[in-house]
Amino acid sequence: MLEKELIIALPKGRILLELKSLFTKIGFIPETDFYNDESRKLIFSTNILNVKIIKVRSFDVATFVKFGAADIGICGLDVLEEFSSPEIYRLFDLEIGKCRLSIAAKKNSDINFRNKSHVRIASKYVNLTNNYFASLAIQDECIKLNGAMELAPHLNLCDFIVDLVSTGKTLEENNLIEVEKIMDVTSYFVANKNSLKTKSADLNKIIKLFGVKLFEN
Amino acid sequence: MLEKELIIALPKGRILLELKSLFTKIGFIPETDFYNDESRKLIFSTNILNVKIIKVRSFDVATFVKFGAADIGICGLDVLEEFSSPEIYRLFDLEIGKCRLSIAAKKNSDINFRNKSHVRIASKYVNLTNNYFASLAIQDECIKLNGAMELAPHLNLCDFIVDLVSTGKTLEENNLIEVEKIMDVTSYFVANKNSLKTKSADLNKIIKLFGVKLFEN
Repeated sequence: MLEKELIIALPKGRILLELKSLFTKIGFIPETDFYNDESRKLIFSTNILNVKIIKVRSFDVATFVKFGAADIGICGLDVLEEFSSPEIYRLFDLEIGKCRLSIAAKKNSDINFRNKSHVRIASKYVNLTNNYFASLAIQDECIKLNGAMELAPHLNLCDFIVDLVSTGKTLEENNLIEVEKIMDVTSYFVANKNSLKTKSADLNKIIKLFGVKLFEN
Repeated sequence: MLEKELIIALPKGRILLELKSLFTKIGFIPETDFYNDESRKLIFSTNILNVKIIKVRSFDVATFVKFGAADIGICGLDVLEEFSSPEIYRLFDLEIGKCRLSIAAKKNSDINFRNKSHVRIASKYVNLTNNYFASLAIQDECIKLNGAMELAPHLNLCDFIVDLVSTGKTLEENNLIEVEKIMDVTSYFVANKNSLKTKSADLNKIIKLFGVKLFEN
């Protein structure tokens, strides 16, 4: 039992299965509906009194933690780098949700972007994309899409996409090829910086539960 | 049959049922999988040769049409106003997908935002929100969320949210109340401005099919 209420922000979608086995292993048990992705419920109690979970989209995990509306969260490195907020403290790498952020293009198209003076890209990751191409001294125009990235090169919205790749099956199905990896991605356990100060005793208990004594003196 | 290929961008989600009855009425028939929201397919043929449909998120409909990757689209007024792009031409109001964009707050909180010098809002509609509060000469800070807006006031991420309201049931379920309507929303038939010039004959056929002879001379 904790003294203060702690809110943990967790991402919806494909990572829930991996979280389930992690949580089961450490004995952290959310209320029943949590693993049901069809549930419209947004906030869930757990077997630890005063610890609640919110289940939101991965980008929103970062927003809730950044502003302290959630004290801790589990968040992909892709999202952390896209947000790049000093208010989000990276506690440790959970080594789950492994994938990579990559540049992809249509099969049989000119994939040699390093020779181009200007490239047009579609991505959810506008900051990451702009930073990466800037580091290569290539001028890019990044068009923000929220989904269906795989369509964009086929309709000439862009020459390249920047998106998460796991097995590569989705690219293959959509007649796309991976051109270059930008970064490896795993999920991190993160905390709001202010919560780390104001709720350190309670946060320490949760962090220990997750197997790492980061606050040992 | 059309001479040139036309791409129509349509939004996923709740509006598909209304589109289905509209399309059935005018004899426009997409391939079977289109109405199945579980399908991972992104592009669909139709009973009109050379007319294809892409099914994407509502914000992405505007992006695809804006850049001419889709020639026409069906798009909520909320999204059109948020994007406010001169490249997207509004052909006519389909009068489906009726709802409203509203400001909401926690029940029993101080909802009188007109008395405040500064308000903190969570919304998907950052531009619309900033414009609305600027028009009232109220300073606002709008935090972008992609979903789960209803949680935000309860976790003190914000004082108000700006979101679509249809029946009001979701607000009620989440202990929120509607404070003020910003605008009424319906879905529009829109076209890329350049497509209107370069594919006018073919576009005219589709527009006539949708019941309005906008290009009559």
